[in-house]
Amino acid sequence: RMSFIVRSAVIKNQGLWSPALGASRTMSSAGGSFTALSVTHPANAVTHVELNWPEKRNAMGRAFWSEMIECFNQIAVDPECRVVIFSGAGKIFTAGIDLMHITSEFLKQEGDDMARKSWNQRRILSKYQDTFSVFEKCPKPVIVAIHGACIGAGVDLITACDIRLCTKDAWFQVKEVDIGLAADVGTLQRLPKVIGSRSLVNELALTARKMYSDEAKSCGLVSKVFPDKEAMMAGALEMAGEIAGRSPVAVQGTKINLIYSRDHSVPEGLNYMATWNMSMLQTHDIMKAAQAAMEKKSPEEVIFSKL
Amino acid sequence: RMSFIVRSAVIKNQGLWSPALGASRTMSSAGGSFTALSVTHPANAVTHVELNWPEKRNAMGRAFWSEMIECFNQIAVDPECRVVIFSGAGKIFTAGIDLMHITSEFLKQEGDDMARKSWNQRRILSKYQDTFSVFEKCPKPVIVAIHGACIGAGVDLITACDIRLCTKDAWFQVKEVDIGLAADVGTLQRLPKVIGSRSLVNELALTARKMYSDEAKSCGLVSKVFPDKEAMMAGALEMAGEIAGRSPVAVQGTKINLIYSRDHSVPEGLNYMATWNMSMLQTHDIMKAAQAAMEKKSPEEVIFSKL
Amino acid sequence: RMSFIVRSAVIKNQGLWSPALGASRTMSSAGGSFTALSVTHPANAVTHVELNWPEKRNAMGRAFWSEMIECFNQIAVDPECRVVIFSGAGKIFTAGIDLMHITSEFLKQEGDDMARKSWNQRRILSKYQDTFSVFEKCPKPVIVAIHGACIGAGVDLITACDIRLCTKDAWFQVKEVDIGLAADVGTLQRLPKVIGSRSLVNELALTARKMYSDEAKSCGLVSKVFPDKEAMMAGALEMAGEIAGRSPVAVQGTKINLIYSRDHSVPEGLNYMATWNMSMLQTHDIMKAAQAAMEKKSPEEVIFSKL
Amino acid sequence: RMSFIVRSAVIKNQGLWSPALGASRTMSSAGGSFTALSVTHPANAVTHVELNWPEKRNAMGRAFWSEMIECFNQIAVDPECRVVIFSGAGKIFTAGIDLMHITSEFLKQEGDDMARKSWNQRRILSKYQDTFSVFEKCPKPVIVAIHGACIGAGVDLITACDIRLCTKDAWFQVKEVDIGLAADVGTLQRLPKVIGSRSLVNELALTARKMYSDEAKSCGLVSKVFPDKEAMMAGALEMAGEIAGRSPVAVQGTKINLIYSRDHSVPEGLNYMATWNMSMLQTHDIMKAAQAAMEKKSPEEVIFSKL
Amino acid sequence: RMSFIVRSAVIKNQGLWSPALGASRTMSSAGGSFTALSVTHPANAVTHVELNWPEKRNAMGRAFWSEMIECFNQIAVDPECRVVIFSGAGKIFTAGIDLMHITSEFLKQEGDDMARKSWNQRRILSKYQDTFSVFEKCPKPVIVAIHGACIGAGVDLITACDIRLCTKDAWFQVKEVDIGLAADVGTLQRLPKVIGSRSLVNELALTARKMYSDEAKSCGLVSKVFPDKEAMMAGALEMAGEIAGRSPVAVQGTKINLIYSRDHSVPEGLNYMATWNMSMLQTHDIMKAAQAAMEKKSPEEVIFSKL
Amino acid sequence: RMSFIVRSAVIKNQGLWSPALGASRTMSSAGGSFTALSVTHPANAVTHVELNWPEKRNAMGRAFWSEMIECFNQIAVDPECRVVIFSGAGKIFTAGIDLMHITSEFLKQEGDDMARKSWNQRRILSKYQDTFSVFEKCPKPVIVAIHGACIGAGVDLITACDIRLCTKDAWFQVKEVDIGLAADVGTLQRLPKVIGSRSLVNELALTARKMYSDEAKSCGLVSKVFPDKEAMMAGALEMAGEIAGRSPVAVQGTKINLIYSRDHSVPEGLNYMATWNMSMLQTHDIMKAAQAAMEKKSPEEVIFSKL
Repeated sequence: RMSFIVRSAVIKNQGLWSPALGASRTMSSAGGSFTALSVTHPANAVTHVELNWPEKRNAMGRAFWSEMIECFNQIAVDPECRVVIFSGAGKIFTAGIDLMHITSEFLKQEGDDMARKSWNQRRILSKYQDTFSVFEKCPKPVIVAIHGACIGAGVDLITACDIRLCTKDAWFQVKEVDIGLAADVGTLQRLPKVIGSRSLVNELALTARKMYSDEAKSCGLVSKVFPDKEAMMAGALEMAGEIAGRSPVAVQGTKINLIYSRDHSVPEGLNYMATWNMSMLQTHDIMKAAQAAMEKKSPEEVIFSKL
Repeated sequence: RMSFIVRSAVIKNQGLWSPALGASRTMSSAGGSFTALSVTHPANAVTHVELNWPEKRNAMGRAFWSEMIECFNQIAVDPECRVVIFSGAGKIFTAGIDLMHITSEFLKQEGDDMARKSWNQRRILSKYQDTFSVFEKCPKPVIVAIHGACIGAGVDLITACDIRLCTKDAWFQVKEVDIGLAADVGTLQRLPKVIGSRSLVNELALTARKMYSDEAKSCGLVSKVFPDKEAMMAGALEMAGEIAGRSPVAVQGTKINLIYSRDHSVPEGLNYMATWNMSMLQTHDIMKAAQAAMEKKSPEEVIFSKL
Repeated sequence: RMSFIVRSAVIKNQGLWSPALGASRTMSSAGGSFTALSVTHPANAVTHVELNWPEKRNAMGRAFWSEMIECFNQIAVDPECRVVIFSGAGKIFTAGIDLMHITSEFLKQEGDDMARKSWNQRRILSKYQDTFSVFEKCPKPVIVAIHGACIGAGVDLITACDIRLCTKDAWFQVKEVDIGLAADVGTLQRLPKVIGSRSLVNELALTARKMYSDEAKSCGLVSKVFPDKEAMMAGALEMAGEIAGRSPVAVQGTKINLIYSRDHSVPEGLNYMATWNMSMLQTHDIMKAAQAAMEKKSPEEVIFSKL
Repeated sequence: RMSFIVRSAVIKNQGLWSPALGASRTMSSAGGSFTALSVTHPANAVTHVELNWPEKRNAMGRAFWSEMIECFNQIAVDPECRVVIFSGAGKIFTAGIDLMHITSEFLKQEGDDMARKSWNQRRILSKYQDTFSVFEKCPKPVIVAIHGACIGAGVDLITACDIRLCTKDAWFQVKEVDIGLAADVGTLQRLPKVIGSRSLVNELALTARKMYSDEAKSCGLVSKVFPDKEAMMAGALEMAGEIAGRSPVAVQGTKINLIYSRDHSVPEGLNYMATWNMSMLQTHDIMKAAQAAMEKKSPEEVIFSKL
Repeated sequence: RMSFIVRSAVIKNQGLWSPALGASRTMSSAGGSFTALSVTHPANAVTHVELNWPEKRNAMGRAFWSEMIECFNQIAVDPECRVVIFSGAGKIFTAGIDLMHITSEFLKQEGDDMARKSWNQRRILSKYQDTFSVFEKCPKPVIVAIHGACIGAGVDLITACDIRLCTKDAWFQVKEVDIGLAADVGTLQRLPKVIGSRSLVNELALTARKMYSDEAKSCGLVSKVFPDKEAMMAGALEMAGEIAGRSPVAVQGTKINLIYSRDHSVPEGLNYMATWNMSMLQTHDIMKAAQAAMEKKSPEEVIFSKL
Repeated sequence: RMSFIVRSAVIKNQGLWSPALGASRTMSSAGGSFTALSVTHPANAVTHVELNWPEKRNAMGRAFWSEMIECFNQIAVDPECRVVIFSGAGKIFTAGIDLMHITSEFLKQEGDDMARKSWNQRRILSKYQDTFSVFEKCPKPVIVAIHGACIGAGVDLITACDIRLCTKDAWFQVKEVDIGLAADVGTLQRLPKVIGSRSLVNELALTARKMYSDEAKSCGLVSKVFPDKEAMMAGALEMAGEIAGRSPVAVQGTKINLIYSRDHSVPEGLNYMATWNMSMLQTHDIMKAAQAAMEKKSPEEVIFSKL
């Protein structure tokens, strides 16, 4: 029922999204404790996480790296949350990693010799990679909504999300090669599995050129382009409402198996799927949803238990 | 020579496809024995398999699941068949799995406890998965032609085929999440390897929204859209004729290695290919085709031995 | 600095590309020794390799197969080269493998029995596969620029390059099935990982139909289409200049990890990347590039050490 | 309870094994229909399959290949069977593949050219491989008991079983290299994963030398050596009784996951195991077994539901 | 130098191991906070972790599962620790998982339906698996010393350690099948990769029979058997001293690559190793060790920087 | 016939092996040109490669690394060679890598910064790895015969051979950890797949302790121990004679598939095997060998064509 209501509300108020209105519930356990992130609940079962350092163009600094893992670990087990919207506050989505931060973390690496410095480097780098992998470890789908610039680590971040939306003025830049390094927190691994043209992936990563929203849509990086941020956030909320209104057993099982399939052959994926579903098919949700279907109701009108 | 004739015929009669005309030969051994499927031979070396339960919108019921494996096992070893066209009779391609059937199969699962019920569930599910995998195990290419709706298990089915064509009025829906389950007979495993936008795959699977023919074309799900079913069937037959007219050693080896490559790294795929071709390059077909090429003939004018 | 100059030059002279002008430096050690290939250096750090048998439509004959490996082995370790442009002389890119050559190599295979003939066949085939794999083993990015026809082995060749550009009049044909064999030097392995529509890949490989530049662009095979060869070569040179102007540590590490990622799961790719970068992050290039960024300079104005 | 009784019986009558006595129940559906195999039920929940062509030294002929798959497909779904003993009637375990049979199957291969002959060859070969893979596809553990000679395809066969026992006079020979071919129905694939010395595996496969029971024990091919066939069959029956007396959910889940682990990395294996057990841990068997443990009863005294 | 001293001490006092003597340094940050584990430092750079619930036969209860991860996370980054000895206090190594604990954790699983109960089950199970995987994630080698019984989860635990030693009276039992479940925290995944006889692995896992120290030695589960616990602990300490005295860059790189190789093909392992060592070969430790070698000193006399 | 003669000779002269006698034919094209290796032909179709720097205890210096690849590339295509014996001249098998050489190669690495030094390091390291991988790329089986010490890179070398034999006085040492590095040219990758006890592998690699011939035999590193070098070389020659006397199609196909199987799952290995044998089963060798078998002749009396 909840997302049925959400949806009605959204449809009626198309274009009236406002982050302030959405803040109906604070994060279960640690809501107020984040500084780089802002967490709100714009609708039932929908969590909105916002990059919240607009004065620094949402650069990813020390606070960001430590808060992301904690935030998504909470979301992963929060039974009140069924879907996540991720976006950026202020004028752009993100300017990428904070140059000051990265310099202090990486370039003044300690260690008695080269091997030891490298060792410590790898430890930090792995931690950074883990930060973006939280999107995939969290079984709740993440819709990322991008406006303005999405630079460097921003691309690493969005390729780890499930669904990408953007505004007409959005642009994307695999920036790393410009500052002397190979993109190492996910872009080189995920981008080629996210869009369908390898020539384009290589070109973007090797030349650091900007890609604008129309090309992002035609190459499949984003699945929808909106005229402005307000429309995009309304669209994201509507989509989130649709996902939140469906069986969480079905939704989260779908996400987990989609990610599994990406990294395995088709026969491997089928075997895993069959093993997964031998228990999941015994959910009451199927009966509830089937009955609703016979009664010509929308799945969103069914009330499913929490997961 | 055969497909040369086919082609001429097709070109001359563009738009005059009629299933009745095509029924020139019945299925070698079991032609008349299928009820959910109709099998005909519209042209030399071309087998046409049709979902044939139009009164139930080609829903996949008990008969379907048992007949598919038998049908394609026959096709796999039928030397008269070099390519398959798969389509649906009546108003739409398929409404997906028959709800009555699935309910009786899955929801009244027997077993003395949860583990035993799950065990039986998995056995049935694996059987269902195998049903669609017959398309891949059969070395003859399968062209699937979709008109009207293609819902739920219909998407699982078409992603296991080799070439997808559709009509302008076709639409596709990964429906499973609507009835409380994760798509488990192939969509989650194959769709991401079939189209180039992961964001779109996730959106379709998580929201169960409909995708229409233009988006299906632009995202690469289908490789061609036709104005109506008649045109599509003529187009499918023409394409089938071109494939049937080429060396079956080349065609079937191509299919087998394309599927192998999907599930392996490039070096693995190359190694397998070299091992495959160490015998296949010794076919007489190469000489025949090379000679035809020198004589400026079309490959379709050459007569290749059966395989 | 160098590519800064290159770029200026290119921009100023847009449309004035001429192979003759580019020949500023001969191949370090064996420059004059190739017959099927022509190797020049149109700009600093940019190597241009040209298929150079225009009278035979750049068919790949005996000389080609032996020279390619030698040529790219030299390029791989040539510190003066940071990026490669690959194109064809004369009217078309390439007509594919030379039929005379292939006939003498494959069809008159020696060996006392079938097994021994097959054994020798496999040895030759592997050698051919290795020829195109040199593009991937060479850590310098390869931009391939295609005009006119690109047939058969030409498609195998270009799918092993990193970035694909073409002219408006270019067309592509996976020709092998026409002469009785399954494409075995890379097309079946790489094409499905290069473009985003599996239905299209299968159709092209099974029917040998021609694909023109607009479809090549929309399906992602090429990332840009130019009006004519002159414009394309200028565009390729400009892109090469941008890549050559960036840190070779970053550029070559990016290429190596992009190829690694194609053949591995995301977690495997991330692990390799972290291990790779534990040393590469200690390059001076990062400092140089970061400083340039602070001084609002383009990365191309920085002088990086050779690699 | 059943195997408790079995065990008592076995212990009391150690040495009194007799195939005749065991034939208490015929194969559920097709008991009498096998000619190359003899199927009996020497104890509750234990099925005994015997190679039964002693006059031909249990050579594997036409009947064998067709009956094996049918026999184990029946066993796989027979709820009365929880464990299988496999052995050979007469003087030796098996002389391997029947030379007459193999000659007619392989050497007179039909096909219009080399490629077509090879194609048919591969089809038959795959069928042969599938024959031995039935041991692994059947979730019930298979104990193989070997006496006298185990030659050629016999080694392929036993390496696909779960537990290997032999008599003191047993010997093993990877014979294929002696007749001009590489062992192709499982030995080269499974033997290296079955025993711990790669040098020994290579030596056996490349020289075709005989290995006797003591070396078979020390290298780990068999886990126990018995003085004679009577003692071995009694030992096999006792071991089968122990397995049959335990929870079939536990036993068959163990077999399935052991085979999965062999072919996957440790993290992959753990992931699959966790997904497998999320339903299997909800069996009543755990409660039953735990209670028995608290009451100091043997697990074999518990009555578990069929699976 | 340190382990040189350790070694001398050990050699002189062979047989005089006493846990009390070893407690020279408490755990850097949380030394006193464990209840199921006891952590001491018997020698320089050697950490000794002891299962410490002797009154419950070192059963693994609630405290154990939460403390293990914390303890080994600390060890992983403790620069004072270069090698770990793991053993059990009291009469036996461990009786395995605490039946009370497991019952309350698993059997009273919450959840509104089967799917939700399974979901929670899987979450807990994964946590348990992670507990033993800490041994592998920690780059410092772990020597496990087993005396008396090692039952059920104890086998899961020891197969995740690097080197296994045991006393003459030790015995091992893959107990899970006895209580109705398939071993799911590592035994089925790791045991087959730890010992060389697959027949034996299957037999142990399917029958739950005990294996004694002599068989454990001959099958390769342990690499050494000692007459009693005192001798074993002295032997473990001596071996730990030898490892601790060598370059930590070499030792930890060796462990990481050995685990990587287990889960990858040989070419994959070599590629990773080359990438790993491109930085690690630049350690000063090589020069120090090489010089020591030329001066005929033992590597243990060299002082290596911390890692 | 040839090896029939060889065998007779060997049997008659057991113990009379002499390298001098064996030098009946020089290396086809470059026989005299090696300095670190000595290549002779002690019997028909048997090539003997000897580490030949006894005054330096067969240390692996500059010449070794460059000659190995050339030598085995020649052997790989030499139709006169069907099997290789590899051993060491003088008092021991090998002292491992030459410390002088390694120091100059690795420690004075050139490069303008850390990243560039690492880059060059990796290039050299890969070359070293390739040197030992020639054993696996060469399809002819390699029997390695070890006497006295086999240290460091010697262990990397022998684990890449197919069959390992040693003398009673032989000992093995994974020495690398002693000089501050992780074994990086094959030991860490291959040793765990060569012997059956992981605990032992880890212990050897982490402590650098010596392992003597009896333990090498019981753990499966070698498959046979001989009293002295003379007996071992006679034994190696006899074994080589047996292999050389069998069908080269069978022998080399066996080696190739054994190595393939090591690095793949069982189903993958079976698929490759079936594809391999679809041509190889059509060799005349099978007929020849089958006929010999019927005539009760030894396979070694058959004359097989060269491969």
